[in-house]
Amino acid sequence: MINNVTLIGSGNLATQIGIAFKQSKITINQVYSKDVKNAKKLSKKLKCKFTNKIKEIEIKELGIICIKDDYISKIADKIPNKPIVHTSGSTNINTLNKFKKHGVIYPIQTLNKNKKANFTKIPICVEANTKLFEKELNVLCKKISNNVINVKSNKRLNIHIAAVMCNNFTNQIINRAEHILKKQNLSFEILLPIIDETFKKIQNPKTRLQKTGPAIRKDYKIIKKHIEELEGLDKKIYNIISKQIMSDE
Amino acid sequence: MINNVTLIGSGNLATQIGIAFKQSKITINQVYSKDVKNAKKLSKKLKCKFTNKIKEIEIKELGIICIKDDYISKIADKIPNKPIVHTSGSTNINTLNKFKKHGVIYPIQTLNKNKKANFTKIPICVEANTKLFEKELNVLCKKISNNVINVKSNKRLNIHIAAVMCNNFTNQIINRAEHILKKQNLSFEILLPIIDETFKKIQNPKTRLQKTGPAIRKDYKIIKKHIEELEGLDKKIYNIISKQIMSDE
Repeated sequence: MINNVTLIGSGNLATQIGIAFKQSKITINQVYSKDVKNAKKLSKKLKCKFTNKIKEIEIKELGIICIKDDYISKIADKIPNKPIVHTSGSTNINTLNKFKKHGVIYPIQTLNKNKKANFTKIPICVEANTKLFEKELNVLCKKISNNVINVKSNKRLNIHIAAVMCNNFTNQIINRAEHILKKQNLSFEILLPIIDETFKKIQNPKTRLQKTGPAIRKDYKIIKKHIEELEGLDKKIYNIISKQIMSDE
Repeated sequence: MINNVTLIGSGNLATQIGIAFKQSKITINQVYSKDVKNAKKLSKKLKCKFTNKIKEIEIKELGIICIKDDYISKIADKIPNKPIVHTSGSTNINTLNKFKKHGVIYPIQTLNKNKKANFTKIPICVEANTKLFEKELNVLCKKISNNVINVKSNKRLNIHIAAVMCNNFTNQIINRAEHILKKQNLSFEILLPIIDETFKKIQNPKTRLQKTGPAIRKDYKIIKKHIEELEGLDKKIYNIISKQIMSDE
């Protein structure tokens, strides 16, 4: 059983998973960050040691790499051969091949340092290089989440893609809608009821498939009018998403 | 004061606005639909007369055209010169020029025949060809909604575009995310917490602008990996929305 973890990273994910583990009586051994201020700040929250020197990273039972995807393999080269996981949606487990026990724990959620996350509801994707280590990671993750699933790297990549679409892309579209209203001196507030209704429909598998709007009606006149009114990438995005709704790919 | 309306159309909007007006003690004089079954069905709900013959349409104080945008001008040619409005987001008020008193009432909401809408919260855009008629329409609409705004046709067009983006486009993206998970034999349920969080962030103007994800981080490796994994229009849409997030147009 893993009861002691070292956090390699001090960002949004490190902060929130650290808080969740601490609350579940897992000891946080140490926090590493290249920025000593960040390391110190998080270590205070988690009441643990900190370092900003890679060679001082001390892993007892598990190291959790929570840094940008590009740096995972770089930092992995420099840390001792202890049980290790990364937390990236799109990075293959093989990146950590040099460790005898290696794996992944990827929480499907957008996290923020300053906003406490309710981990019990967050699905966590687990992968490990051995059945035994997979079991250990499952036991660990089930202490903070009620929804632990075991998925291989390629499935996890697809989950990450779907998560980016559901989170970053919908948010982007809403931001552009706000921009369009602002140009007309209109308040974004007038869209909140339709956004609320959309969200309610999305949550239900039946209503999610009840498509409405000009594209599904193949109302080409309206689509043309809208595209003519838009500019730049908004124009292109309106065109291509309408095309996809119509082709119902 | 308008206290009597005739509904020209029997679809989602006609049904829900009819119910809302009836509840606010506005008399529904008659329902017209080219499909006699639909006309009859809605007239039963609203306890009013019905017809499927255009020449039998009887307007006392106001006719409300709630039919597909393309047919508005066609039906307008055939009905008597009585006070009239259409309910389309993207159709210019001028389409109804031949009527002495003409205007628009456009509710910013996706409506469904079979799901009762709470009109009090739905913003209604009003436009009219005279100040007096605008006032009359405002009084009428305020009976069913607490959020009546006066906007000209071009602003309304932009509101409709923004509404299509917030509703149909976000719904489409979520449907594609579900499709991607299905191909991996994964349940859509695992995305519900991140969708919930996204929706909460969208509602708040501050958090809406806190962008996250590979595109805003300019994480080109991840973006490339995701685009390589996707196919068809999903690939193109992922590419172009990421581009827009990065350019922060």
